[in-house]
Amino acid sequence: MEDIHYTCQWGTGERWGSAPTETGMSRLALSDADKEARDWFVSTTQALGCKTTVDSMGNIFAVRPGLRNDKPPTFVGSHLDTQPTGGRYDGILGVTAGVEMLKVLADNWVETEYPVGVVNWTNEEGARFPLSMVASGVWAGSIPQETAHNTREVHPGTATMLSELTRIGYLGQTPASYESIPMAAHFELHIEQGPLLEMSNKKIGVVKGVQAYKWFTVTVKGRDTHTGTTDLKSRADALLTAAKMILHSHRLATANAALASTGILNLKPGSTNTVPGDVTFSLDIRAPTDSTVQKMKDLILADFAAIAAGKDILDSNANCTSGLPCSVTIVEDFDSPATIFHNDCIDSVSKAARSVLGPDAQNLVMEMTSGAGHDSVYASKRCPTSMIFVPCREGVSHNPAEFCKEEDCSLGAQVLLQSVLRFDRM
Amino acid sequence: MEDIHYTCQWGTGERWGSAPTETGMSRLALSDADKEARDWFVSTTQALGCKTTVDSMGNIFAVRPGLRNDKPPTFVGSHLDTQPTGGRYDGILGVTAGVEMLKVLADNWVETEYPVGVVNWTNEEGARFPLSMVASGVWAGSIPQETAHNTREVHPGTATMLSELTRIGYLGQTPASYESIPMAAHFELHIEQGPLLEMSNKKIGVVKGVQAYKWFTVTVKGRDTHTGTTDLKSRADALLTAAKMILHSHRLATANAALASTGILNLKPGSTNTVPGDVTFSLDIRAPTDSTVQKMKDLILADFAAIAAGKDILDSNANCTSGLPCSVTIVEDFDSPATIFHNDCIDSVSKAARSVLGPDAQNLVMEMTSGAGHDSVYASKRCPTSMIFVPCREGVSHNPAEFCKEEDCSLGAQVLLQSVLRFDRM
Ligand SMILES: NC(=O)NCCC(=O)O
Ligand SMILES: NC(=O)NCCC(=O)O
Repeated sequence: MEDIHYTCQWGTGERWGSAPTETGMSRLALSDADKEARDWFVSTTQALGCKTTVDSMGNIFAVRPGLRNDKPPTFVGSHLDTQPTGGRYDGILGVTAGVEMLKVLADNWVETEYPVGVVNWTNEEGARFPLSMVASGVWAGSIPQETAHNTREVHPGTATMLSELTRIGYLGQTPASYESIPMAAHFELHIEQGPLLEMSNKKIGVVKGVQAYKWFTVTVKGRDTHTGTTDLKSRADALLTAAKMILHSHRLATANAALASTGILNLKPGSTNTVPGDVTFSLDIRAPTDSTVQKMKDLILADFAAIAAGKDILDSNANCTSGLPCSVTIVEDFDSPATIFHNDCIDSVSKAARSVLGPDAQNLVMEMTSGAGHDSVYASKRCPTSMIFVPCREGVSHNPAEFCKEEDCSLGAQVLLQSVLRFDRM
Repeated sequence: MEDIHYTCQWGTGERWGSAPTETGMSRLALSDADKEARDWFVSTTQALGCKTTVDSMGNIFAVRPGLRNDKPPTFVGSHLDTQPTGGRYDGILGVTAGVEMLKVLADNWVETEYPVGVVNWTNEEGARFPLSMVASGVWAGSIPQETAHNTREVHPGTATMLSELTRIGYLGQTPASYESIPMAAHFELHIEQGPLLEMSNKKIGVVKGVQAYKWFTVTVKGRDTHTGTTDLKSRADALLTAAKMILHSHRLATANAALASTGILNLKPGSTNTVPGDVTFSLDIRAPTDSTVQKMKDLILADFAAIAAGKDILDSNANCTSGLPCSVTIVEDFDSPATIFHNDCIDSVSKAARSVLGPDAQNLVMEMTSGAGHDSVYASKRCPTSMIFVPCREGVSHNPAEFCKEEDCSLGAQVLLQSVLRFDRM
């Protein structure tokens, strides 16, 4: 808890309560605040006897030697970057619990069979550079490093991942690859970010996999015209068209038991008395299976084109004068198929949870699938992987008021430590 | 035409054709480019024998003495500021036609009965500082000067009208008031900005009045949450709610023969995987009568509150999982009731048009009401006023491709000159 709150001095966000630690976080990837948190991670893990390596995506690997060092380390990993209005637990809990593991091992003179490590992955959130889990994706060989390096920040600005890695001094020499930095396994402790554990009074989620998702950028082009002199039928109103699409994406999500979300919308020219001719928005589609996400994509491609052309889809034009057609382009930026974690790791977590929670464990543990993406998704492509979830208040995350009780953070950290030790012995 | 294109070197906008003058304009009020255009206006009118006065809203009045100077001047007025993606004619035509009038009077040694003048009004567009016609509004005593001075620019930035007037050196000593700078009459030449003249092959619009409009700022508050872990019914999605409101405003406009437009929308926090908890958008409502605008306002206040609360208004929730309630606040920022111009001025324009157009005039002149607001709206509150419209291509305005033929600019300028001379003699 001390490390969580100490490191949250870098990038402190909006206040939600009166106590000193009752604020959110705003520590965008590769910002100055992120650099400070990284520097802390490097010096703290080195002081605990680790060797640290920075790779060409700015991922930082801290490794503590084992009795034998002829096999790769068992890693704990998560991320220190946050959403623009994020909380103190998403990612941060996982990294600080890894550091806590290193402390417990050091304090107790524990020698592991093989090395163990902690990794801080870069830009997991995909908030500043709009590709989530991008640096573990490069490590796994799933995302080309050039694509990642050239990714531009979302908000007006011209920085790329490469320029910011260089600027803050975290462009490492070691290639970002599972080949140069192999892992025996990857464990990640994380807040659930949803309400299921809290609602059912469980303490530990044993995470068996992660749902599928795709990210799109939708661009609608109409025509800038005067709001006072252009009658409704002579308008090609890109914002009205985008509004219909956003509403329609929710209808499709409802019909297909999927999720559809728009978190970014920019328009031009941005004047009260000009009908906007240019709107761009993000679309995040998720579902338990790849086939549902693909179906949503197919429906969106067809229906958004029809909405732009002025066709009446699900009555969205009812009672509304139809205007001139707009054009629409939809680009898929990111794709993360459904992930299934490795039985050995799931087992380690499950057993660790039962041993930490004792006799009451069967009432306190729940198997679950993650709604959010995590670096464990890409780690799992190259080594056995699983995750541990702990409840967070009202299931709220990506919000300054995100909160996880001290006792739950601590239970999670104990399960993490035990999972790593079990896997190491195995 | 030379003055139009010469002055469009300051704030040149997007290109729409290949000829040197085939670009739009981006000359926001009180920008550096606006200062250059103002400097040109001052030096050109002074060289033509005018005395220039800058008032405390940066309005610039250039006055040419008459035979007698014991009554106020007959003014021509319009504006040199543009939309962010505007054209070369909106406002600019009116000011340069005023300067052309001064040249014709000087070249021909014409002595008017009373003084005549040309005024460049500040921030007519309401694009940078979101109150349209604000500086003529202060002159007329309709908008408090403090409100105007404290108005902040729309796009991220902290400048106010007062700070920018000071910065570019156009904060004059003379109070902005019809009392310190009285007018005998106000005539304004403007492109129609709509399609009616072009569609009916008319050359001159005799403008009898201006429709009513109100501007609102709508703020929707929900809750930032994770897009991957928050099911649709647990979301308070401020953007989905805003999308329903925007669509609904068009339904209300359709039902009430009014116009509803959203030109600005900003959201927070602006991350692909965070459901936005905070959306602000502009709403511009127009109709021929004050009572329709008021009815639209009443409907919007009631229906937006219901939409935010999750009630189903006009089926906007159909097929869409309903989420948690959002809150909404709606602030009226600006109100311009329907305007009726003065018969003496309408008559002057009408007779001038007939004399300029000759025998065919009855087929080429049309009486009309303006869909857009103009400084003539506020001028008309303190002196007899009317306007002259000329056709613009496809009725498009607030667009870089806004275009008015040379022959139409010239016909309009001739009618303007004749209207002023007629009124002066009257
Ligand atoms: N855990 C988390 O918030 N990850 C960000 C990637 C996602 O959008 O799911
Ligand atoms: N003429 C013109 O575009 N004026 C701006 C004020 C309005 O929004 O009507």
